[in-house]
Amino acid sequence: MRAGPGAVALVLVGDELLAGHVTDTNGPWLGRRLAEAGLEVVSSAYAPDEPDAVVKAVERALDDAPAVVVTGGLGTTSDDVTRLALARVSNGLSVRALPNGRGIEQGVRLDLGQGTVYAVPGVPAEMAAMVEKHVLPALLARAGALPPRTTRSLLVVGPGERQIADLLSPLEVTGRLSYLPRAGEVEVRIRVEGADAFARADAAIRAARELLGDTVAAEGGSLAETVVGLLIKANATLATAESLTGGLLAGALVSVPGVSAVFRGGVVAYATDLKADLASVPASVLERDGPVATSTAVAMAEGVRRRCGATFGAATTGVAGPDAQDDHAPGTFHVAVAWEGGVRHLSRVPPAGVTSSRDTIRRMAVTWSLDLLRRAVGGLGPGPGESRPGPTR
Amino acid sequence: MRAGPGAVALVLVGDELLAGHVTDTNGPWLGRRLAEAGLEVVSSAYAPDEPDAVVKAVERALDDAPAVVVTGGLGTTSDDVTRLALARVSNGLSVRALPNGRGIEQGVRLDLGQGTVYAVPGVPAEMAAMVEKHVLPALLARAGALPPRTTRSLLVVGPGERQIADLLSPLEVTGRLSYLPRAGEVEVRIRVEGADAFARADAAIRAARELLGDTVAAEGGSLAETVVGLLIKANATLATAESLTGGLLAGALVSVPGVSAVFRGGVVAYATDLKADLASVPASVLERDGPVATSTAVAMAEGVRRRCGATFGAATTGVAGPDAQDDHAPGTFHVAVAWEGGVRHLSRVPPAGVTSSRDTIRRMAVTWSLDLLRRAVGGLGPGPGESRPGPTR
Repeated sequence: MRAGPGAVALVLVGDELLAGHVTDTNGPWLGRRLAEAGLEVVSSAYAPDEPDAVVKAVERALDDAPAVVVTGGLGTTSDDVTRLALARVSNGLSVRALPNGRGIEQGVRLDLGQGTVYAVPGVPAEMAAMVEKHVLPALLARAGALPPRTTRSLLVVGPGERQIADLLSPLEVTGRLSYLPRAGEVEVRIRVEGADAFARADAAIRAARELLGDTVAAEGGSLAETVVGLLIKANATLATAESLTGGLLAGALVSVPGVSAVFRGGVVAYATDLKADLASVPASVLERDGPVATSTAVAMAEGVRRRCGATFGAATTGVAGPDAQDDHAPGTFHVAVAWEGGVRHLSRVPPAGVTSSRDTIRRMAVTWSLDLLRRAVGGLGPGPGESRPGPTR
Repeated sequence: MRAGPGAVALVLVGDELLAGHVTDTNGPWLGRRLAEAGLEVVSSAYAPDEPDAVVKAVERALDDAPAVVVTGGLGTTSDDVTRLALARVSNGLSVRALPNGRGIEQGVRLDLGQGTVYAVPGVPAEMAAMVEKHVLPALLARAGALPPRTTRSLLVVGPGERQIADLLSPLEVTGRLSYLPRAGEVEVRIRVEGADAFARADAAIRAARELLGDTVAAEGGSLAETVVGLLIKANATLATAESLTGGLLAGALVSVPGVSAVFRGGVVAYATDLKADLASVPASVLERDGPVATSTAVAMAEGVRRRCGATFGAATTGVAGPDAQDDHAPGTFHVAVAWEGGVRHLSRVPPAGVTSSRDTIRRMAVTWSLDLLRRAVGGLGPGPGESRPGPTR
């Protein structure tokens, strides 16, 4: 365990977390926020809503790190057990209340010989507010001067995890590399510690960009943020026409602050006849090639661009499954980008024997269409999967 | 700890999980899948990519339950450490390989005196395939006959967590109740164990429905699933017009299998002028009331319904923030549902001093518009927030 002065252990309380009925966001938020502040989460455990189990988890956490943050299980409904468990851990020692600016439940601070425990409510907004105001300042004061440490990340679209790892192997002497494959993209993280950590991380990122070329789609942010940034820089606007992705491409774009300067809007042409009416796809194209075709994606992108008066149009069409459609296997999709005088498109035919969930196929199509936009707006050459590129913009 | 015969402990390996750079989906998936099979996850811990830390986490897990599932840290890239850690835990004892039908990394099975450890890759599709094929059958064989145990859930839209807990307090004698507030909705879970668990759970769900009335929006599923089911039953179709939610309402609907029978499509009218062009909002309404108004939401719902030839139209407009727009505070939004001869609408003005993230505001608007649809399509009376209801359909 890396139990240095900035080490923090988490305990996340709730039956629903163990049973998978809810996906925890407090743990990831704390992991990121504490790392930003120079601290480090060294262990994290879920505990059920039972005092005995919470006591055990808090004692283990105190063995891992001198500071422990507990979320959840504070309150007045019947499943709240953290306060009871901390009373047992404290053995009569001093328990202090932490005020809650947003909600009703107070937090708890417990100072013990082996460390300090901070308990905050599980409601994410209340958790975050209390951590910012009360917990983080106390953790930083306790940690004192921290050793320099930084983590940097790149988002790569095109090569697979193993191919990226081979390319980046020279950087392993600088820091710890990790690879997080997601639908259609891989996040590469480089963690550098010790003297000159920040300068060495800068150098490692420059080297990684050199090795990976224009498959690097974002640095420390999302692909949608890169696309919005490129559109702002190009003083250009965008409209979307979605069939397969049913609004998720537009949804990914509107999550970026500042998007309203460049995103006009779009259409969700889920039913085939709406591809003609809403996205202005010529009936002849639909009759000849059907809804799942490169020509249809191109016509949707061009149609929505004109209809919404945008510089660029982006479109998705395909088969999410589980059944095939008109002989197209689930996972088949086509994405296209159109602008005045040009188009680019990209198609996916699923490899034989590979099946993906509806959700994964949709997320992959969102990623591929955003990356095609990145290449088109940024004036880059064809990406690895762009089989028949149109003229480069 | 509830370390009965079906108890399983999880260890999830990966720096990225502790640092919050990726949100784990393997833990929730295992929690749900094992519970479905009658098993129970009694503890779950994240460990960094360090052999010492993985050894410690596996030893703790073996203290919690006789069966341990480890995900991640298996493979050939530089951050893979699980195999090394298990060799140390095994102390030379028998390690068996688990084949992987989907990817390259093999899994590991380790039989020890105090229990069995199964290690599977962290890539979700490979993890799930190996658990289904090799791990789950072995866990069930080991557990033998399991005591009856079931968990049921209801989704409630309208009352808050505390109000629901007060209403449902008579059910606390039957089982363990837990409450999971999300943007705009609360999931209530009832866990019942022991003799007649299934019959008692049925009775508890009936009693909860009685106590909560028509604020129960779904049972064991999502609100979008309820809405799609009601539309199918009514032989009706739907189109959406989104401003604030930018495609997320359509995205929630298309995630439901079978939606293509009822969802026509829609428009994302992000720029104000597109509300007139795409969603057929009269220019006079936009001039008089602006883009953030009940009248605009109603006109969008009616416009998109006609444009897409759908039975129902649903619309959202509002301010995600962080800045106010035309004197409307961030978090203000209006949702509307229109059909031949009627409309219903619902507005949110954020309480003074309460601020929410852009993402939370959007998710709340998606939930409220789906719930308004549920009430309109299902012919229910006005919900708690429906201040000026139109005629009930």
